[in-house]
Amino acid sequence: MINYPNKKKPLTEKQYKKQILPSKKTNTANRGMDLEHDLNISNEYYVNNSVALIYKRPTPINIVKVDYSKGARIIDAYFEKQSTTDYNGVYKGRYLDFEAKSTHNLSSFPLHNIYSHQIDHLKKVNECGGIAFFIIEFVNLNEVFFLDSKFVIDFYQNSKRKSIPYQTIKEKGILIERKFKPRLDYLKAVEQFYDL
Amino acid sequence: MINYPNKKKPLTEKQYKKQILPSKKTNTANRGMDLEHDLNISNEYYVNNSVALIYKRPTPINIVKVDYSKGARIIDAYFEKQSTTDYNGVYKGRYLDFEAKSTHNLSSFPLHNIYSHQIDHLKKVNECGGIAFFIIEFVNLNEVFFLDSKFVIDFYQNSKRKSIPYQTIKEKGILIERKFKPRLDYLKAVEQFYDL
Repeated sequence: MINYPNKKKPLTEKQYKKQILPSKKTNTANRGMDLEHDLNISNEYYVNNSVALIYKRPTPINIVKVDYSKGARIIDAYFEKQSTTDYNGVYKGRYLDFEAKSTHNLSSFPLHNIYSHQIDHLKKVNECGGIAFFIIEFVNLNEVFFLDSKFVIDFYQNSKRKSIPYQTIKEKGILIERKFKPRLDYLKAVEQFYDL
Repeated sequence: MINYPNKKKPLTEKQYKKQILPSKKTNTANRGMDLEHDLNISNEYYVNNSVALIYKRPTPINIVKVDYSKGARIIDAYFEKQSTTDYNGVYKGRYLDFEAKSTHNLSSFPLHNIYSHQIDHLKKVNECGGIAFFIIEFVNLNEVFFLDSKFVIDFYQNSKRKSIPYQTIKEKGILIERKFKPRLDYLKAVEQFYDL
């Protein structure tokens, strides 16, 4: 997959499950696939220490057929694209909402894997006073950034570019520290940026 | 179902779908089944007017078998009980989290349909500074109340009673106004109680 950075498809549930199993991590070259895993265990750390309560939204499922003779057993359904974002929750009473994305690019973050309804969703979060942001990983640089959604929304709507340059993300965002616990201390960046 | 108030089971997806279809509402005796519908259209009103962004969490689905030969088609799965609450979202920047329940009882709200892990979840929300509450409908009285979660948690853990008396809910909670738009203006009660 590393050889085809621009052909990255949304994960199937199988691929997703593979990726969160720690036993599958055989070398550091796959580290980029672990962003979700790192966020999930960071969130576990946050909740166990009563710091924040952040949930990963389940992949939406469209139900086609249910067999009621077996007590409402679903016998035909499929995964859908997330129409909102991956994560939401509460930190210091504030509502948090964010999307996490990885790229194998070195010089920019391509916008094609952000959907327009996700932009709409993040706009609404902002309108209601919520905190909305992106977590962007440059896999091959082994760097993860916090980036405020307002900047991304503006760039998405007004820039002629189809990707945000790495340098811009470095300037406008905040590099997230990798630690032992929590693995990715992204709330530190949130606190800093929004002055919580 | 009105004849068996204490035998109310969690809804199947089919029953749930039936209940949210307006065309199925044939008489006012079924009004109690419409709490979820009323909340959903109130939330629609709130989001369309940029007041708040509140989502109903989907019923969790446990996937048993996926057929990858058909492009990740789910061929065996079942509905699970909600381990958190029904709704969460953002209002005036604050994180909101609540559970909505109806009862056909006249004199009290039975606690047996609140699960202990829901209580744990609401405790965590409170610990992180979030706003956590219940919306309780007395179907046969045609009254819907807002009730802060801290009171419910305390009652759940410390009272010998297995139900909260109607009179107590009336005193500790806030009667939610039924209007044309929004149908159930529960955010007014939230604003009043938490002084937002």
